[in-house]
Amino acid sequence: MQNALRHTSEHELIPRFATQGYDSESVALRRQWLEQKTGKRLECMAELGADTDQMRGNVENPIGTAHVPLGLAGPLLIHGGHAKGVFYVPLATTEGALVRSYERGMAVLTRAGGVDTRIQLDANCIAPVFCFEDVIEAHEFASSLQDHFAEIRREAESTTHHGKLLRIEAYVQGRNVTVKFHYYTADAHGMNMIAKATEQTCRWILLNLGAKDYYLYSGFESEKHASGNLFVSCKGKKVTAGARLSANILKFYLRATPAQFVRLWRQTVLGHIQAHSVGYNGHFANGLAAVFIACGQDVGNLPNCAVGITNFEATGSGDLYASVTLPSLTVGTVGGGTGYGSAKECLQVLGCSGADRAAKLAEIIAATLLAGEISIGAAIISREFVAAHEAYGRNRPESPVSIFSSRDE
Amino acid sequence: MQNALRHTSEHELIPRFATQGYDSESVALRRQWLEQKTGKRLECMAELGADTDQMRGNVENPIGTAHVPLGLAGPLLIHGGHAKGVFYVPLATTEGALVRSYERGMAVLTRAGGVDTRIQLDANCIAPVFCFEDVIEAHEFASSLQDHFAEIRREAESTTHHGKLLRIEAYVQGRNVTVKFHYYTADAHGMNMIAKATEQTCRWILLNLGAKDYYLYSGFESEKHASGNLFVSCKGKKVTAGARLSANILKFYLRATPAQFVRLWRQTVLGHIQAHSVGYNGHFANGLAAVFIACGQDVGNLPNCAVGITNFEATGSGDLYASVTLPSLTVGTVGGGTGYGSAKECLQVLGCSGADRAAKLAEIIAATLLAGEISIGAAIISREFVAAHEAYGRNRPESPVSIFSSRDE
Amino acid sequence: MQNALRHTSEHELIPRFATQGYDSESVALRRQWLEQKTGKRLECMAELGADTDQMRGNVENPIGTAHVPLGLAGPLLIHGGHAKGVFYVPLATTEGALVRSYERGMAVLTRAGGVDTRIQLDANCIAPVFCFEDVIEAHEFASSLQDHFAEIRREAESTTHHGKLLRIEAYVQGRNVTVKFHYYTADAHGMNMIAKATEQTCRWILLNLGAKDYYLYSGFESEKHASGNLFVSCKGKKVTAGARLSANILKFYLRATPAQFVRLWRQTVLGHIQAHSVGYNGHFANGLAAVFIACGQDVGNLPNCAVGITNFEATGSGDLYASVTLPSLTVGTVGGGTGYGSAKECLQVLGCSGADRAAKLAEIIAATLLAGEISIGAAIISREFVAAHEAYGRNRPESPVSIFSSRDE
Amino acid sequence: MQNALRHTSEHELIPRFATQGYDSESVALRRQWLEQKTGKRLECMAELGADTDQMRGNVENPIGTAHVPLGLAGPLLIHGGHAKGVFYVPLATTEGALVRSYERGMAVLTRAGGVDTRIQLDANCIAPVFCFEDVIEAHEFASSLQDHFAEIRREAESTTHHGKLLRIEAYVQGRNVTVKFHYYTADAHGMNMIAKATEQTCRWILLNLGAKDYYLYSGFESEKHASGNLFVSCKGKKVTAGARLSANILKFYLRATPAQFVRLWRQTVLGHIQAHSVGYNGHFANGLAAVFIACGQDVGNLPNCAVGITNFEATGSGDLYASVTLPSLTVGTVGGGTGYGSAKECLQVLGCSGADRAAKLAEIIAATLLAGEISIGAAIISREFVAAHEAYGRNRPESPVSIFSSRDE
Repeated sequence: MQNALRHTSEHELIPRFATQGYDSESVALRRQWLEQKTGKRLECMAELGADTDQMRGNVENPIGTAHVPLGLAGPLLIHGGHAKGVFYVPLATTEGALVRSYERGMAVLTRAGGVDTRIQLDANCIAPVFCFEDVIEAHEFASSLQDHFAEIRREAESTTHHGKLLRIEAYVQGRNVTVKFHYYTADAHGMNMIAKATEQTCRWILLNLGAKDYYLYSGFESEKHASGNLFVSCKGKKVTAGARLSANILKFYLRATPAQFVRLWRQTVLGHIQAHSVGYNGHFANGLAAVFIACGQDVGNLPNCAVGITNFEATGSGDLYASVTLPSLTVGTVGGGTGYGSAKECLQVLGCSGADRAAKLAEIIAATLLAGEISIGAAIISREFVAAHEAYGRNRPESPVSIFSSRDE
Repeated sequence: MQNALRHTSEHELIPRFATQGYDSESVALRRQWLEQKTGKRLECMAELGADTDQMRGNVENPIGTAHVPLGLAGPLLIHGGHAKGVFYVPLATTEGALVRSYERGMAVLTRAGGVDTRIQLDANCIAPVFCFEDVIEAHEFASSLQDHFAEIRREAESTTHHGKLLRIEAYVQGRNVTVKFHYYTADAHGMNMIAKATEQTCRWILLNLGAKDYYLYSGFESEKHASGNLFVSCKGKKVTAGARLSANILKFYLRATPAQFVRLWRQTVLGHIQAHSVGYNGHFANGLAAVFIACGQDVGNLPNCAVGITNFEATGSGDLYASVTLPSLTVGTVGGGTGYGSAKECLQVLGCSGADRAAKLAEIIAATLLAGEISIGAAIISREFVAAHEAYGRNRPESPVSIFSSRDE
Repeated sequence: MQNALRHTSEHELIPRFATQGYDSESVALRRQWLEQKTGKRLECMAELGADTDQMRGNVENPIGTAHVPLGLAGPLLIHGGHAKGVFYVPLATTEGALVRSYERGMAVLTRAGGVDTRIQLDANCIAPVFCFEDVIEAHEFASSLQDHFAEIRREAESTTHHGKLLRIEAYVQGRNVTVKFHYYTADAHGMNMIAKATEQTCRWILLNLGAKDYYLYSGFESEKHASGNLFVSCKGKKVTAGARLSANILKFYLRATPAQFVRLWRQTVLGHIQAHSVGYNGHFANGLAAVFIACGQDVGNLPNCAVGITNFEATGSGDLYASVTLPSLTVGTVGGGTGYGSAKECLQVLGCSGADRAAKLAEIIAATLLAGEISIGAAIISREFVAAHEAYGRNRPESPVSIFSSRDE
Repeated sequence: MQNALRHTSEHELIPRFATQGYDSESVALRRQWLEQKTGKRLECMAELGADTDQMRGNVENPIGTAHVPLGLAGPLLIHGGHAKGVFYVPLATTEGALVRSYERGMAVLTRAGGVDTRIQLDANCIAPVFCFEDVIEAHEFASSLQDHFAEIRREAESTTHHGKLLRIEAYVQGRNVTVKFHYYTADAHGMNMIAKATEQTCRWILLNLGAKDYYLYSGFESEKHASGNLFVSCKGKKVTAGARLSANILKFYLRATPAQFVRLWRQTVLGHIQAHSVGYNGHFANGLAAVFIACGQDVGNLPNCAVGITNFEATGSGDLYASVTLPSLTVGTVGGGTGYGSAKECLQVLGCSGADRAAKLAEIIAATLLAGEISIGAAIISREFVAAHEAYGRNRPESPVSIFSSRDE
C-alpha cells in the first residue's frame, strides 16, 4: 500500500485481543502494556467495581475504571407527574461544596412543601439534510414530503421495536432541505435507535423522492450542542419544576428575601443577555454533570441539557416562586450506561432503573437542578459563595463553618 | 422557630458524623443508611478505588464511588508548544464506539505526520456586576475604573499565591456596570481562586468607588454556560490543533476524499447556523466528557469547553487541512479532582499530573478532539455511522465488522 | 393634579389642530412652528410629493416629507412561483455604489439565465404569554389548549376579514405559557391585524381557560428583532432564490471563479460564527433597506428580515450555484405605507401594487438580495470593494473607472 | 466572447448618460424610460425635494425621490454629555401611531425631569481575515502582530485625514487569523474610511508578515448584522440613556405602575431568551428606522444598531428607573446621506448637522428610543396597544380616542 506510513514502534498501536478483549485478563494485559509504555503504576484504575464483561458495548480498549467520588443529597420531596415522594439523589463530582449546596437547596424545598414537576414533551430528534439540483427541486421536495409520511414512517419503524416516528418537518435552505424527524423513544436515550431508523428512511428518500445526496446529521438537531433552537426543538424531554417558598423559610435557611432573589435574577439575566448565552440559569451544568455521571447518562449531552431557564418570581402574597425549565433533557433508564455497576445502583436508589422510568428520572433531575439554583442564588445574595467554597473545597481548614447548612440542628 | 417545618421521618436528613464523615466507616454507615432507606443493595459503589479520605474537599456526604468504564485511544502524535510526542489518551465513557472512533482518528492523524497544536491565550475570567443610582454614576465609574487598576490588583492578589490579575474591562448597561476580571491561574482551573480574589476587590470597590451593590457572578463570564461571547472572552485556554491529511491517507483509512470532507462541513455548518448553535463542531462534547471524567476535570464546564470550531479545508495541493479551535478550555492539572485516584493516574499516563502541565493537557485535549472530528466526519460521509454504532453498541452482534478500524492489519 | 409638572414654554408641546392636522395648512403651520422653535429654514421637507391627507394613518404630527434618492437597478430576470419576467427594481438609498452594485449582480444573473425563486411558507405570528399559579396549572393549560382551537380561532377571526388563524403552539416556561399564534394575512404585512385578533383571543382565554394574566407580546415572536428562532418561526414569508452561474460568466463580468466564491463563503461564515451572528449573509440589510424605503414597507422589520443565509456552492459541472434563503420576510402590498405616493409608484413599477401581489414582491426582493450577494462577494474577492466605493462614493473623483460595471459595452 | 449572452431587448440595460446622468434632464429621461418600459405614470417620485446633482455620491441611476411622511415628536428634555436641552425629533415613517407613541414617551420623560445620556465608547471596526499554511504560522502571526502596530497604524492612517487606528486584536481560528481594527472616525459613520485604511494595511501585511491571502470583511465585525458579539465589539457608539419616573407620573400619564413595568420586563425578557434573540428591547428598530430615514443615516445598519437592552428597574424609593443601552449605534453627521436635502434639515432641527455633532446625535437617538420603550411598555401593560393602533392606523375611524396622549389637556 502506497501512502500509508507504517507505525514505528514509537507509534505503536494499542494491543488487540482475539476475544475483543473484554475478559479481565485482556483488560489487565492492556493496562500493563500502558504501564510499560508510560512507566507509571496504574493501581487505582485497576479496581473495577464491575465485571469487565459489563463493559462490552460501553467502551473499547478497556483498561480499567475511572472513579468519581459519589455523594448523596436529599431529602427532596417531589410532587411530579411521574416522580412522587422523597428522594435522595446520588451526585458524582470532585467539586467541593457542590453536594452540600444541592443538599441545602433540597432540604429547603422539602421543608417548603416540595417541588411540583411536569413533563411537557417527550421526543428525540435527528435532522438529516438532503441535497437537490436547485431551489425549485428543493421546494418541491419540501412541499410534497408530508404526502409520503406513511411510507417514511414505515421505513423508520421497520428498524426498531420501541421507537415511534411522531412527525417530520422540512426546512428549505437554498437547494438543500433539512428534515427534522421527531421520535418517541420510550425509556431509551434513543439516539442510536433513531439514527438507525432515520438512515433507513434516508436511503428510501434517496431512491424514491429525487434527492441527490444526504447527510444523516446536519447539525440542525443540536445533538450534544447548545443552540437557540432547543427551546422549540423537542430534543429529549421538556420538563418544568417549580416551588413556592415563603419569605420566612428563605430567611431562616438561606438568609435571603424573595426581593433579593428577584433582584439577583434581573442582574444576572442581563449578564447572560450581554454574553448572548443560550438560556439563563445559575449552574444547571454542575448538577447535571453530577447526576449524569452517577446514573450512567450520556455526559456528552450536557451542552444541550444545560440549556434552560431558571425563574425567580415574587408572588402577590410575598412568597418566592422558583422554577426551572429544561427544554432538552436527553436521559434514559434503559440502554447506554444505565445498566453498568454503580450507575444501575444509583438509578435503583432513585427507583429509576429499567423500563417506564425515564420520565420519572427526568422529573427528579429537574427538581434537583431547582435545588441547586436556589442554593447558589442564596450564596451569591448572602455573599457566602466564596466562604462556602473555602469551607468545603480542596484546601479547606480543619473545622469549616457549616455555611451551606440548612439544617435545624 | 416559627415557620420551619420539622422533617418527618419520611423526610429524614442524611446522617452527619462527628468527623465530617470521610473515614471509611462513616462512608459505609451512610451507604448502609441509604440501603435501608431505599431497600436496595449497593455493592458496586462500595468499591472505592481510593482512600475515603481523598474525597475530602471533593465531595460531601460520600457514599462510595461512581464507576465509569475507562478505555484507551492512541497513538496520537502531537507537535505542540507544550505537548510533544506520542500519547495514549484514557477516555471514560459508556457510549459504545466512542473510544474506537477516537482511536481511529488518532491513528490516522499519527500516520499523516501528527497534529500541530498551539495555545493562544491562557486566562480565566469572572465578571461581577456593580449597581449605581443612574446612568451618569455608572458611566463615571466605568470611565475611571482603569485609574484604580493598581489598587484593585493589589486587593485581588492579596488572596492568592498563584493567581495574577491581568486586566479588567468595564461594560456599562444602563445604570449597572459589569466588570470582567481576567486572571492568569497557573495550572489550576482557578475558578475558586479567582472568585475569592474578585470578592475581595468587590468589597474594596463597594467601599471606595461608590458602587451601591454588587453580585459576584453576573453571568457575563459564561462560566459553565455556552455563549456567543466565548470566542472573544478568555475563559480558560484558547487552543488550536491542526493537521494536513493527504487524499491517499483519507481514502485508505477513512474511505473519504478531501472534497467530501469539505462538502460535509458546508452542509453541517448550515445546519448549525439554522439552529443558531454556538460555534460549529461535530461532537466535541463527547471527547471532552470522556477525557474530563477520566482526568478529574470539572465536567460542569462542558457547556463552555464544547463551544468551538472544526474546520475542514481543501489545500491547494489536494490535501485536507483539518483543524479545531477551542476558545474556552477550562482545564487544570492541580487542585479540583486532579489528585484523585484514577484521575491522577490518567493524568500521569499523559505526563500531565501536577504543576506546569495544564497547557500540555490542553493541547492533548485539542488534538484528541481533532481526531474525533475526523473520525465522525468520515463515518457520516461513508455512511458507516450507524453500522459502527451497531457494531460497538450495547446490543451488538457477536462478531462485528471492525468498521471504525484504521489499522493496516 | 399633583405630580404632573406643567411644561414650561421651553418644554412646549407640539401644536395640535382641530382636524387632527392632516390638511396642508396644518402641516405647514406645524413646520413653521418648528422653524421658529429651532431657527432653521425647512424648505426641502416642505416639498411633499403627495397630498398631506394621504399621511393620515401613516404618521402623526406631520411636518413634511423625508426625501431619499431613488435609483434603479436591473434588468433582473426571475423565474418565480409568483414573479415571472424581467424586473427593474427601485432602490432608495444614500449609500454611494449600492445601486451600481446591485445592478451589476442583476445583470449577471439575467445573463446567466435568471433567478429561480420559491415561497415555502407564508404566515405571520405573534406570541402572547399567559401567567399561572404554578407549573401544574401551566402544564395543564398547555396540554389542553389544542382542545380549544376551534373557539380560539372563532374569537380571532371575528376581528378580521382577511386573517386566518392557521395554528397555535404552546411553550411552557415555569409557570408561564407562551402561545404562538400563526396567521395567514393575505397581502398585508398583517401585524396590526393579528395583534387585534390575538388580543381578542387573549381576553377569551383569560375568561375561560384559567390564565391569571397575559401580555400580548412576549418577545418570543421576534417581531422587529433578530433571533435564532426565525429559521423555524414562520414570521412572514420564507423565500428562497437561486441561480446557476457558469465559470465563464463569473470570470467575464465579475473577475472571480466559482472556487473563489466558495472560499470567500467559508472564511466569512467562520467570521459570522465567531461573532455568533444570526444567520449568514453579506449585506442583506442594504438591499432590504433600499427596497423597503422605496416600496413603503415597514423598515422597522429590517432586523428580522435581514436574518437569512447566502450560499455559494460549487456544482459538479464547474459552475457556481448561488442562493439566498430568507426565513422571515415580512412584506405587504396593501395597507401600511404601500399606498403612499412614491411607494405606490415603486410597487407599480414592479407590478406589485395591491391585492394578490405580496408573494410576488417577496420573490423579487429575494432575487434582488441574491444579486447584491453576488456582487459584493465578487468585489471582496477581486479586491475592488474599496475602489468601487471610492469611484461611486460621496467624495469621488471626476471620472471614476466603471469598476462595478457588468456591461458588455 | 463566448458565454456572455447578449441582452435581448426584453432584458434591456438601464440607459447610461455621458455625464453619468445626475443632471435633472438625465434623471427625467431615465424615469421616462422606466415609464415606457412598465406602462406606469411616475409622477410622485418626480418631485425631488433637492437638486439632482446632490444625488451624486449617494445613488446611481437616479430616477427620482422616495418620499416618506415626516412627523415630529417631542418635547424631549435631555441631560447628556453632548446633547443638552429640549429636542423635537423628526421621524420618517408610515406606521400609524408610531410618532404619537414616541411623542407620548418623550412628554412623560420630560415631565419626569428629563433623560440622562452618556457615551461610553466611540469607535468603528472592521475585521479582515488572514490565511496561513497551518496553525503554527497562524499562531506566530497572531502572537507577534502587536509588535507591528506602529507600522500598521502608519499604513492605515496614510489613507485618511480623520480616522485614527486605536488598536488591533488578533483572533486565531485554526490556520486563519481574524484581526479586528478599531478606529476613531470622528463625525463620520466611517465604514468607507476604515475599509480603505484597512485595505491598505492588509496589502502591507500580505507583503511583510507572511499571510498567504486575506478577505477585507470576515463577518466578524458584524457590520449590518445582528450578533452576540456587539455587546463587546465597539462597532459605532455605545450609548446609555436613563430616567427616573415617579409612580405618580406613570400612573397619571401612562396608566401603569412601576411594578407593572418590572413585571412586563420579566415576562418579555423570558420571551426573548426563549427565541434566543440578540439583546432585549421592545421596539428599538421602529424608532431607529424613523430617525435614520429622517436624518440621512445608513438604514442598512439597523440590524446592528437595534441590538441593545432596555431595563425597567424598581428603585428603593418606589420609582421606576428606565434605561436603554445601545452598544452599536453607527451614526454620523458628516458624509453619507447627511448632507442631502431633507436629511440635512432634520439634522439641523436637532442641532446635529456637520462636524462635532455625531456624539450629540447618538445621545438624542438613545433618549428617543427610551421614550419609545416606555410608551410601548405602557401600551402593552394597559392593554391599549391594539386600541391605539386602531385609533391611529391606516383604516382608523373618524374620531379616535386620543389613547396615546400624555398631554394634560
